[in-house]
Amino acid sequence: MKIMILGGDGYLGWPTAMHFSKQGHEVIVTDNFLKRRLEMEEGLSSLWPVPHLHRRSKVWKEVTGNDIIVEPNDLRNSRAVYKIMETYKPDAIVHYAEQPSAPYSMQGLERASLTQHNNVIGTLNLLFAMQAHCPEAHLVKLGTMGEYGTPNIDIEEGYITIDHNGRSDTLPFPKQPFSFYHLSKVHDSNNIMFCCKNWGLRSTDLNQGVVYGVHTDDTKLHPELGTSFHYDDIFGTVLNRFCVQAVVDHPLTVYGKGGQTRTFLNIRDTLKCVELAVTNPADEGEFRVFNQFTETFSVLQLAEIVKDACSGHGIDVKVDHIPNPRIEKEEHYYNPKNDKLLALGLYPLLLSDVLINEMVSEIGTAKDQVDHGVMLPRVKWRHH
Amino acid sequence: MKIMILGGDGYLGWPTAMHFSKQGHEVIVTDNFLKRRLEMEEGLSSLWPVPHLHRRSKVWKEVTGNDIIVEPNDLRNSRAVYKIMETYKPDAIVHYAEQPSAPYSMQGLERASLTQHNNVIGTLNLLFAMQAHCPEAHLVKLGTMGEYGTPNIDIEEGYITIDHNGRSDTLPFPKQPFSFYHLSKVHDSNNIMFCCKNWGLRSTDLNQGVVYGVHTDDTKLHPELGTSFHYDDIFGTVLNRFCVQAVVDHPLTVYGKGGQTRTFLNIRDTLKCVELAVTNPADEGEFRVFNQFTETFSVLQLAEIVKDACSGHGIDVKVDHIPNPRIEKEEHYYNPKNDKLLALGLYPLLLSDVLINEMVSEIGTAKDQVDHGVMLPRVKWRHH
Repeated sequence: MKIMILGGDGYLGWPTAMHFSKQGHEVIVTDNFLKRRLEMEEGLSSLWPVPHLHRRSKVWKEVTGNDIIVEPNDLRNSRAVYKIMETYKPDAIVHYAEQPSAPYSMQGLERASLTQHNNVIGTLNLLFAMQAHCPEAHLVKLGTMGEYGTPNIDIEEGYITIDHNGRSDTLPFPKQPFSFYHLSKVHDSNNIMFCCKNWGLRSTDLNQGVVYGVHTDDTKLHPELGTSFHYDDIFGTVLNRFCVQAVVDHPLTVYGKGGQTRTFLNIRDTLKCVELAVTNPADEGEFRVFNQFTETFSVLQLAEIVKDACSGHGIDVKVDHIPNPRIEKEEHYYNPKNDKLLALGLYPLLLSDVLINEMVSEIGTAKDQVDHGVMLPRVKWRHH
Repeated sequence: MKIMILGGDGYLGWPTAMHFSKQGHEVIVTDNFLKRRLEMEEGLSSLWPVPHLHRRSKVWKEVTGNDIIVEPNDLRNSRAVYKIMETYKPDAIVHYAEQPSAPYSMQGLERASLTQHNNVIGTLNLLFAMQAHCPEAHLVKLGTMGEYGTPNIDIEEGYITIDHNGRSDTLPFPKQPFSFYHLSKVHDSNNIMFCCKNWGLRSTDLNQGVVYGVHTDDTKLHPELGTSFHYDDIFGTVLNRFCVQAVVDHPLTVYGKGGQTRTFLNIRDTLKCVELAVTNPADEGEFRVFNQFTETFSVLQLAEIVKDACSGHGIDVKVDHIPNPRIEKEEHYYNPKNDKLLALGLYPLLLSDVLINEMVSEIGTAKDQVDHGVMLPRVKWRHH
């Protein structure tokens, strides 16, 4: 298959590109390098340096003999998007090319607006370009479980059958997103759903949980094939941050009570899930939603798991409850479904001491590079 | 009260401004005149010329002695929006300032993108400016009943209580919008709901039906105080178009079977509904949704009502079924609720021969100005 990875420079995009390339697919990666620019703005870096995309593609070729075609491209530039779709006419498009951080989006109007403009208008350009040049292509779009919020009922996969006043219909599952970033994903989902219904495009929306992990099989092949790793308050995610905190003897920073319950998956499972979606495409006109995660934990449970795993190796980890910078429920019902990817054959890699030890050990090699000043939350959801 | 009308140059914005001004409120109108520019692009005009906003404000002052302050302003310019909110700190903001046409938004990427950018980013700028300078102000936002689509269950007002697997929650009503324009309104609603919850803003989302009518009490006061009237395929709405078609002996253009059922209200009731929302504000942090319509008709029923009303005056009206340019169900269940505005005291002005005769008679005075070439639909929802 010809597979285009949008946002191929990122934490998940680059490992996804290698994963499909290794399997013999023709892989094209695009990126506008917005994330790299935002890191500059914020004064944040990956825990280890990440070579640029051209370099990584060259190393990949040397190591495996396979090509990963690098095509710098900005989804906000409609003409460029039309052109690349016309040139390659991919069979599948894996779309990671969005501003990926909730805290980033909550830093005032400019960043909220950048997030919604980049994500929503970029995806709109992509949809029109697909309609024009590759209407049969399967769009695999990365969404987030944070689109659903924390309703007091089970979270189904994208749709729910509602019985109401003696009648029934299956309708889009109601969304209660947590941030301007999460809102941008909801807007995208609504636009894509419409284009599938209206034009007959085919798409899978992967509502992904919080990803953790350092390595995939391919990142280990060569020191320059690694992917980025953030542990800061803006681009870092909770479990990655906890592991870094444990390594550098920083208390784990649990926001508020820590009863906030979320979904998680290992980075290797992200690749498996995307592969399952790509190799089992949606039908013409179908907008399919998969909830993409393997496990559910509260933030406090996660902290305790990291603490326990580390204590087995003589590392004494402290857990701090700090004021919650976000507006979110700290105790709530949470029961999301993830049957669809399991039915397609996903065998979850569950969080274990082994996985935490792998992370802690890898982070240990870069211990001296950790910036201790970026692990406490600086972005507040409400300013007064 | 100090009331700011955003989009005060439009079909509904201008009558709303006069309505509040007459009642002694301090009224400020803003507009970026985007709609006037889009009319130029499309080669379309109001059935009668509409003086510019400064002129109408001046005439209003001469006729009534009241001021309507005109402040040209573009919601896409965040600095200008902050400035006007800082200057006036309104008590209520009535927000009509959006690209208002579904067919306009379905004319390809540029116009879809303009619609979503103008509407979504403009409203985002407004929300941040309110938070900064008038967080107590009540935002009365015009949405549309088209956000809901045509689900097979009763349409509640913004929220629905869902019982599912033995649990229950009241969640945002699922949306299935009809076009990129309707999608922009859904995106707006989601952004506003979040800002109410997150920052404590107060807002009423008025999901409005299709408005018809030529006059309000105030538009009749002086020939230069009229509001615009569109009957074309882009900016015209169905009942207004049918009345024009009846007057110029053009067959009424029913799309497909005509079983598409929609909600309607007279332009005078728009003013009453907006007044009821403004004078009964939402609470701090509340995002309230009212379904704003008075009656429900299928398109074919509407055509028959116009035909019957006209035949009483010796006008013989023909009804044509033409291929439906839209993707929509032509036969479906439809039962939307509108209890909330009724409970606040709305006494609906129901569609009658009297109302149709008023329209037909007024349109008759401008009969020679009708452009017969703009009444058939030119914009198709799907191109192949």
